[in-house]
Amino acid sequence: VSPRTGRRPGGPATRDSILSAARTAFASAGYDATSLRSIARDARVDPALVVHYFDSKAQLFAAVMELPDVLVTELAALVAGEVEGLGERVARFFLALWEAPTTRGPLLALLRSAVSHEQAAAALRGFVGDALLGQLAPRLDAPDGRLRVTLVGSQLIGVATLRYVVCIEPLASADLETLVVWLAPTLQRYLTGDVMAGAAAGR
Amino acid sequence: VSPRTGRRPGGPATRDSILSAARTAFASAGYDATSLRSIARDARVDPALVVHYFDSKAQLFAAVMELPDVLVTELAALVAGEVEGLGERVARFFLALWEAPTTRGPLLALLRSAVSHEQAAAALRGFVGDALLGQLAPRLDAPDGRLRVTLVGSQLIGVATLRYVVCIEPLASADLETLVVWLAPTLQRYLTGDVMAGAAAGR
Repeated sequence: VSPRTGRRPGGPATRDSILSAARTAFASAGYDATSLRSIARDARVDPALVVHYFDSKAQLFAAVMELPDVLVTELAALVAGEVEGLGERVARFFLALWEAPTTRGPLLALLRSAVSHEQAAAALRGFVGDALLGQLAPRLDAPDGRLRVTLVGSQLIGVATLRYVVCIEPLASADLETLVVWLAPTLQRYLTGDVMAGAAAGR
Repeated sequence: VSPRTGRRPGGPATRDSILSAARTAFASAGYDATSLRSIARDARVDPALVVHYFDSKAQLFAAVMELPDVLVTELAALVAGEVEGLGERVARFFLALWEAPTTRGPLLALLRSAVSHEQAAAALRGFVGDALLGQLAPRLDAPDGRLRVTLVGSQLIGVATLRYVVCIEPLASADLETLVVWLAPTLQRYLTGDVMAGAAAGR
């Protein structure tokens, strides 16, 4: 254990000490109660260095969970685009993350721990609320925007659970394009549809 | 431990010994490789007694998982009914199970263990394939009937995970009728809709 004297300079060791302090903080205090400032203090670095290495709390959380940077940055770009066709783009983005072996492992770990441990669930709640709901819901321009985004999340998490975790056939080996064709209209209706749309057609 | 002499007569102790043998068999050999006959042999009872107490392998699995009998019997009745409006009836049935405190506990345990342990996942795969896919898919009269049923399952499992396990707001405290209105058309499209239906309306 290093003596508590002054702040660390920049460098890989600094990045690691920030990650380590963040991991402890997210696990003990939760996502919402953790700030970049408190992590900087725990890691004994200047808060500007935390921003320099990780940009935002959401990015830092993704790094702690070993999720790829693209998860937060590409998601932001996706959300900033046209609302038209967003359901299909979200379906493709999400499935591509789970299909890639480097991303599937960390996502599996995150899903498993959130389902099994209340602390991990609380951290995921905070992250989703900040990185996903906070960015996407206002873009929908609907009074129930936040509910709509969580409905999108429910369909995506459910597909991930049955296809990649429990591995129920024929969903587990269905080809990606078939899944996108099924899922995109569901997601698009949740995002921008009339709540009653599809009720007549579906019967 | 009782000596291995002859078969047990009927009675509550017999029912318990069947449950105990079934629990061991499902956990070690999995759902598919376990038969009512092998459970009867392990419990040293007449196979007719297993059928007498539990009717079917699906019912016995539900009993081992401490799921209520209605899960299998009402599901069968639901599936046997009209395909029209089935999406809404399935949504109501599923959410009602999770809302009832006596059912939510066992369902939570089943979901958590299936997500965390491969053996539990395998048992769930077999149960779902037998009790759900085996009964519902043929009723849909579609070449991709089994995929459609697993898509229904994906939406339901996802709602359960975000609403009751991870507890993400506002999904966690949305009222039931609002959820049914959102979910029913999704489920109905998966069950009986044209794969492309909703693509135009949703954009």
